[in-house]
Amino acid sequence: MEDQTIRVQLSETNKQKPKSDQLIFGKTFTDHMFVMDYSDPLGWHNASIVPYQPLTIEPSAMVFHYGQSVFEGLKAFRTKDGEIQLFRPTKNLERLNHSNDRLVIPPIDEEFVLKAIKQLITVEKDWVPDAEGTSLYIRPFIISTEPYIGVAPACHYKLIVILSPVGAYYKEGINPVKIAVENHYVRTVKGGTGEAKTGGNYAASLKAQELVGKEGFAQVLWLDGVEKKYIEEVGSMNVFFKIDGEVVTPMLNGSILAGVTRDSVIRLLKHWNIPVSERRISMEEIRQAHQDGKLEEAFGSGTAAVISPIGQLTWEGEDLIVNEGKTGEISQKIFDTITGIQYGKMEDPFNWIVNVETKSTVKN
Amino acid sequence: MEDQTIRVQLSETNKQKPKSDQLIFGKTFTDHMFVMDYSDPLGWHNASIVPYQPLTIEPSAMVFHYGQSVFEGLKAFRTKDGEIQLFRPTKNLERLNHSNDRLVIPPIDEEFVLKAIKQLITVEKDWVPDAEGTSLYIRPFIISTEPYIGVAPACHYKLIVILSPVGAYYKEGINPVKIAVENHYVRTVKGGTGEAKTGGNYAASLKAQELVGKEGFAQVLWLDGVEKKYIEEVGSMNVFFKIDGEVVTPMLNGSILAGVTRDSVIRLLKHWNIPVSERRISMEEIRQAHQDGKLEEAFGSGTAAVISPIGQLTWEGEDLIVNEGKTGEISQKIFDTITGIQYGKMEDPFNWIVNVETKSTVKN
Repeated sequence: MEDQTIRVQLSETNKQKPKSDQLIFGKTFTDHMFVMDYSDPLGWHNASIVPYQPLTIEPSAMVFHYGQSVFEGLKAFRTKDGEIQLFRPTKNLERLNHSNDRLVIPPIDEEFVLKAIKQLITVEKDWVPDAEGTSLYIRPFIISTEPYIGVAPACHYKLIVILSPVGAYYKEGINPVKIAVENHYVRTVKGGTGEAKTGGNYAASLKAQELVGKEGFAQVLWLDGVEKKYIEEVGSMNVFFKIDGEVVTPMLNGSILAGVTRDSVIRLLKHWNIPVSERRISMEEIRQAHQDGKLEEAFGSGTAAVISPIGQLTWEGEDLIVNEGKTGEISQKIFDTITGIQYGKMEDPFNWIVNVETKSTVKN
Repeated sequence: MEDQTIRVQLSETNKQKPKSDQLIFGKTFTDHMFVMDYSDPLGWHNASIVPYQPLTIEPSAMVFHYGQSVFEGLKAFRTKDGEIQLFRPTKNLERLNHSNDRLVIPPIDEEFVLKAIKQLITVEKDWVPDAEGTSLYIRPFIISTEPYIGVAPACHYKLIVILSPVGAYYKEGINPVKIAVENHYVRTVKGGTGEAKTGGNYAASLKAQELVGKEGFAQVLWLDGVEKKYIEEVGSMNVFFKIDGEVVTPMLNGSILAGVTRDSVIRLLKHWNIPVSERRISMEEIRQAHQDGKLEEAFGSGTAAVISPIGQLTWEGEDLIVNEGKTGEISQKIFDTITGIQYGKMEDPFNWIVNVETKSTVKN
């Protein structure tokens, strides 16, 4: 960092904020955004909070051609006392640098970017909704902006943080979903970019998602790209199964994203002394466990839903109904605990919460 | 297509054209570009040739987050008579639609886009260089522009065509390169996006390329993502080997890009009655052929270099020197023939050439 100061240019007019029951994920953005540039040899510089506005980018910018981009997703929550708090933001910024390394993007100063995010939220504090289950989604992302269509790491990048108020994921209680096990398409493979949060992984997932969506499934469950036997992720979430009293989740094998919610689930289960293991899990094992009456629960974990129970898994034409299609006890308990901590309703024994100072004076 | 008319807005000032010996690939762009929008339910519309200019795009545009993008690359060549001609452009536009399908991007009207490319080149005819080995590179690409950060296919896209004059790839005759066989990272896998020309595949390749580049290698040779035994591509080219009189290339298996130059090489070899086959080729087979003195030639094929001979392949610490590090006879003959056809110096028995009308009047 050449310059650790964050310049602030406030918007002259502010948008009307949507009502909390009319919030749609990812379509409404706040009045400001954080922007920082990278160029050789300056490094990351020009850190600024500016009015939310379109980007002006050359058509030859590398991000449009060679997909050199990474992103993160986390949330700010309003407590019943009106305070604003973040959930494990340092984990997201650590992972952003992990993604940067895989995509040959220069590393960021994690502490500085966290400071910038906190300052941006302070500016936008009135955008953090207070209705039950609502939050302010935070999307940091980095794109290669160098105007050059050669296949090589870029010399110019932009880090941008945008904010979007989001409604409650579950408006009428947790709702288990139907998942199709994907046998044709794969998300990624060991040695690929699966561990990184980069656009290409999501682009690769659209086709399978579209096809199963037409058949009434909420998501696909991805199998490994090598043998198409072992379970990787579900949609854009990590996945857990409770089998005969033990909770299992695929181990981080080089093609699975290391979810922050995934890690939180594992730590909570250990805290509760519930057996949990990270290991290779075949789809055949799940089918067998179901047949033996031992598949007790299944759920996805991610920032958007926190916990998304799986009520049905369909594989090779066979429907495996999990827990009579209802939300399991552990699924519900994890959901209640993580959201309890996020909204400041429950104790935070792990120091997961980072407070945002909302009374600081913003320089203009 | 709602409207098949291409509006033309000419630039008021034109850039100074670089000298033909100072052309750098992908850094200089011409005075105009072609742009077309897609939105539901209009379809592709607003087809326009406009001054080359930065794009104004929302920071929430999906291309920045989920990598939903595809592209193509082809060239326009100036013949010694001053005519301008394209090499197999319909193959590129066919492949663009193939990529679109994989990335859940709405199909384009191939005939109309070819017409648009020809009209754009007509406007930019003075940008097609005439020095030996030079050409005008054509980059059509499609990006998702919908301002929405949900993981789903977008409802808004832009197709853009930009043009860049490029210098001779080989300034002092064809130059064989050193290639490292990549054992750790993979480009893609069957069921992934390898068959599509999409940004994510190129983003995934940067890390391996950077690591071997530091060791003095020009490119990596990718092995399959499943067993890491079978040869896929080299860098961003397809790859051929001449073994004991027969030319072999990996068959299109679902993870290899169907190169237009690859197809041209195969058709030429068949035309010459030289044995050629598309099949699975293991790296072990190549090592054995080398050991037996039967590995006669190796080369990459692609739009940029046409043919890039491989003088050395390094695998697991072993250097396989091919044809004493020199350009092979077949490699040279294919290069001479394809470039001969491209520049109108040789007969075109396959009807690969499409002429660009440079005398048409451009409406303003």
